[in-house]
Amino acid sequence: MFHGVVPPLCTPLTADGAVDTASLERLTAFLLDAGVHGLFVGGSTGEIAQLPDAMRDLALRTVIATAAGQVPVLAGAIDTGTLRVLEHARRAQELGADAVVVTAPFYVAVGEAEVAAHYRRLHAGLDVPLVAYDIPSNVGWKLPGSLVAELARDEVIVAVKDSSGDLEGFQQVLDGTAGLGVSCLTGSETLADLAMSRGADGIVPGLGNVDPHGYVRLYEAAKAGDVTAARREQARLTRLFGIIDAADRTRVGRVSGALGAFKAALVARGVIRHPYTQAPLLPLTADEAAAVGAIVADAGLEPVRP
Amino acid sequence: MFHGVVPPLCTPLTADGAVDTASLERLTAFLLDAGVHGLFVGGSTGEIAQLPDAMRDLALRTVIATAAGQVPVLAGAIDTGTLRVLEHARRAQELGADAVVVTAPFYVAVGEAEVAAHYRRLHAGLDVPLVAYDIPSNVGWKLPGSLVAELARDEVIVAVKDSSGDLEGFQQVLDGTAGLGVSCLTGSETLADLAMSRGADGIVPGLGNVDPHGYVRLYEAAKAGDVTAARREQARLTRLFGIIDAADRTRVGRVSGALGAFKAALVARGVIRHPYTQAPLLPLTADEAAAVGAIVADAGLEPVRP
Amino acid sequence: MFHGVVPPLCTPLTADGAVDTASLERLTAFLLDAGVHGLFVGGSTGEIAQLPDAMRDLALRTVIATAAGQVPVLAGAIDTGTLRVLEHARRAQELGADAVVVTAPFYVAVGEAEVAAHYRRLHAGLDVPLVAYDIPSNVGWKLPGSLVAELARDEVIVAVKDSSGDLEGFQQVLDGTAGLGVSCLTGSETLADLAMSRGADGIVPGLGNVDPHGYVRLYEAAKAGDVTAARREQARLTRLFGIIDAADRTRVGRVSGALGAFKAALVARGVIRHPYTQAPLLPLTADEAAAVGAIVADAGLEPVRP
Amino acid sequence: MFHGVVPPLCTPLTADGAVDTASLERLTAFLLDAGVHGLFVGGSTGEIAQLPDAMRDLALRTVIATAAGQVPVLAGAIDTGTLRVLEHARRAQELGADAVVVTAPFYVAVGEAEVAAHYRRLHAGLDVPLVAYDIPSNVGWKLPGSLVAELARDEVIVAVKDSSGDLEGFQQVLDGTAGLGVSCLTGSETLADLAMSRGADGIVPGLGNVDPHGYVRLYEAAKAGDVTAARREQARLTRLFGIIDAADRTRVGRVSGALGAFKAALVARGVIRHPYTQAPLLPLTADEAAAVGAIVADAGLEPVRP
Repeated sequence: MFHGVVPPLCTPLTADGAVDTASLERLTAFLLDAGVHGLFVGGSTGEIAQLPDAMRDLALRTVIATAAGQVPVLAGAIDTGTLRVLEHARRAQELGADAVVVTAPFYVAVGEAEVAAHYRRLHAGLDVPLVAYDIPSNVGWKLPGSLVAELARDEVIVAVKDSSGDLEGFQQVLDGTAGLGVSCLTGSETLADLAMSRGADGIVPGLGNVDPHGYVRLYEAAKAGDVTAARREQARLTRLFGIIDAADRTRVGRVSGALGAFKAALVARGVIRHPYTQAPLLPLTADEAAAVGAIVADAGLEPVRP
Repeated sequence: MFHGVVPPLCTPLTADGAVDTASLERLTAFLLDAGVHGLFVGGSTGEIAQLPDAMRDLALRTVIATAAGQVPVLAGAIDTGTLRVLEHARRAQELGADAVVVTAPFYVAVGEAEVAAHYRRLHAGLDVPLVAYDIPSNVGWKLPGSLVAELARDEVIVAVKDSSGDLEGFQQVLDGTAGLGVSCLTGSETLADLAMSRGADGIVPGLGNVDPHGYVRLYEAAKAGDVTAARREQARLTRLFGIIDAADRTRVGRVSGALGAFKAALVARGVIRHPYTQAPLLPLTADEAAAVGAIVADAGLEPVRP
Repeated sequence: MFHGVVPPLCTPLTADGAVDTASLERLTAFLLDAGVHGLFVGGSTGEIAQLPDAMRDLALRTVIATAAGQVPVLAGAIDTGTLRVLEHARRAQELGADAVVVTAPFYVAVGEAEVAAHYRRLHAGLDVPLVAYDIPSNVGWKLPGSLVAELARDEVIVAVKDSSGDLEGFQQVLDGTAGLGVSCLTGSETLADLAMSRGADGIVPGLGNVDPHGYVRLYEAAKAGDVTAARREQARLTRLFGIIDAADRTRVGRVSGALGAFKAALVARGVIRHPYTQAPLLPLTADEAAAVGAIVADAGLEPVRP
Repeated sequence: MFHGVVPPLCTPLTADGAVDTASLERLTAFLLDAGVHGLFVGGSTGEIAQLPDAMRDLALRTVIATAAGQVPVLAGAIDTGTLRVLEHARRAQELGADAVVVTAPFYVAVGEAEVAAHYRRLHAGLDVPLVAYDIPSNVGWKLPGSLVAELARDEVIVAVKDSSGDLEGFQQVLDGTAGLGVSCLTGSETLADLAMSRGADGIVPGLGNVDPHGYVRLYEAAKAGDVTAARREQARLTRLFGIIDAADRTRVGRVSGALGAFKAALVARGVIRHPYTQAPLLPLTADEAAAVGAIVADAGLEPVRP
């Protein structure tokens, strides 16, 4: 059902912290123009954890309107408990999302039985398809391959997004869902060619905001079985991914550094207006943003013509 | 400012998962009658992670109305990012909470600078006092004692609730905030007497829902310097805390077992009507609930007369 | 320097827990006959952590004698501190090992500066080449790619064995050591084809004891650029790796299950006599061993003719 | 059987890294003179993980000879697997140790069944009593209270040393071994008074090398039920423990900082000659050692008269 390059969109902000809808429209158009196969609004890259509900909804509405049905739009429904997720997912459904992307419950540690109950209850309460989102670094818990397979068999989920960075686990998901019609998407920026060679249906790379053309080329090469071309493109993108290390990590955390770099790069390319991130994330310094710009230029990424 | 026994209230539910306001009123009255010194609505024990905003607000409104100013009411404002927390905290402020209790950001890992920015931004945007909530098991990050001290010195926070289970760290918080007028509360059910002997101002025990009289006795003994009596009471309460092990852990996770046991015990004591927990938490079986009832009876806790 | 398939040899035991040298000679011959490119004695698979020094030495002596210079023999020198490792490494050097394989210090957590000092001190005290062994699951600490690169540049190490399971990290090792003549070996049983496609020089698979021919085919296909054949062989080997799940994990730990399965499979193939593992590891039950044998047979692995 | 203050002795070194037996004799005499109730040779504080067997044995022999039966001498037998530990333990037994102190197996993760088998096999193979050593920070695994209780009931162990820092777990050990005649010792420098108030039989504090008189006073006060005096002494010792933060942690790891500080303090007090630590541990700088000396002087600890 879902396949190809599905970037998790950044959420551009204005100086006062509101959604910069004009920039978000430009980003959406930029990605569509590059040939992406889907759009994911409300992932970690979209700062969903930092956005109030009204901003979440405005971002989703903006992207759905701009995409105008050209590609599927997936919406993150990220929250700690089942009923909270259900509320987000229903709003996304009403706004026209083609699927909702949901993690295991977090903040309170639950067991496998509760996670299964979570997804089953959401499935029962929604008309929109459900995508399981495995992101242990954020949730503190890895979705077992056997549970993904069980949910796939019972048609509770239509896809899985694996942001674990663990290709062994991803292989188990691929094996466990084989023949069930479930899309297996990798969230890795740097192992995408390998995930494709193992049978991934698509890629959800945060760096795809900055260089969607690169990921589309990687995907097309991999689909065509041109392993060498896919690997060469991956190597180029992996170097570009070095922008996330531009921030001084004794000053800010990893996420401020990564999301700040994506936005600084999008500003450098002329896609969005401002590099602001949402509280409590801290922005890059001017020097750090300049370092990001230099890496972007080295990678041969030119400013986008309006 | 805040001191004594401040139980984190369970949120009783009806069969269809709504807040059972009548039971919540009874629970509030039961705790006040036992002599507790404050009430904490919207902690982990209150299933805040599982409750939609409307249920969070209804629970808070119910407790504030029942308490009627007899003791301070603290409200949890638990969410992943600063602006989301700010919205919850403002609603709590409008509903009349005496303080809001806030963790470090979670789901996306941030660094110490972002955590400091989080609390400072919240302080700037609120009139109600701020309590820092250190719960590494849920947040995935421990509030450094030095950061607590800095926030205390700058009057960003008025209290800290330490649910880390780490008395060395709590000692550092006590030392770092000494003389600043900041209340240091422990969240430990089983080390409360030791935390008191080290200088804690109060106790926020989930088990305090079930046996508030016991924790009030422990607190009063500790305040009076009667270490032996405090320890004896603690030993009794630690045995009672065994109710959290009644659930079969190959069937459900730790949190379902603990919160299910608190509610089963409150049903056994006649304080609330139903033992239901909120999705995705799973309820105790009848046998498990009976085992909880037996431990409660062994502890000499009698049903509450209406 | 080191390349190809370098199995970490199991250490066959007699009923009274001594090294079964006859079986170890047969295993060595079996591997050489399959065309492996090196032999690694004293890895985790070789139960080095469970073997006293005399048994470590006897196993190494046996393999070196049997190999008789046909392929390089690497020897694990695994211990908690620098001088302890130095003693093991010197004995291995005297016994004729072609390299010693050394982890970061463990049991007491040290920082990056101490780890660098550890390798530099060992290099200074040895004539035999040094291989860095990155196995975070055992050591509790991941060798940073930047440190591996530094040690490679300074010719402290001649190779690195990456058993982290983390291909992103392995990529950084490959990039950081490019052009320095350092061999990069993966310890993964199930991602070997992907590691090869990224530029690994060789594979150190525990499962290579059981099916060395399969790993040699995988390696040769990958070297020849036949990605499809490498992947097909990998898929077959990954299914075979299912033998490690034959043991009941409510009864024994993961390592007892894995090493017990390797030995049961080698017994089933007629290579070694007994499936015993060293204390405190617990053996498979007869039923579990039979399940291993069935998987081995399903994989088309026939008993080895004497 | 074992009770009171049992310091884990530092192992003083000469400039060339050998055991400085004269300094070790002085340290032993200093501790005995302070009234300690036992001596623990070969703990983490004694750098056992860094010492080759010959140095381990020499240190043990030196302390046993100096103690001359005045107090029990416990010997660490720390290694990864059962037979390796057995060899160390037998040597310690032959050298005259009164007990051997043993952790769970480490480096390879094993399950509870293997840990139980480990202790049972050691007990069967030794005449000297066995002390279970719970140090999750080093071993990566916490000894469950239920397993400690089982081993105590079956008379496999005669004591447990709890260096987990987790007083809840220690309480479970105390409860689970009550009435079995097993000594429960805490390894905490800073929570010793609290552990005593819960029923600990003794204290094994690394800082006890530097200020044995302080820990003896704390222990005696606690035994006499004088909680206030014990707490006051503890507060003083906790401030003194600040010496472990003198080292620049961007330069060296935590263990180098802690063990380097203990030795620098012992030099400052005139007990041992040199502050050297064993590779790969790195020494304090002169400035850091001076900072340690200043804290020692502030604490009122005077140089020891010869």
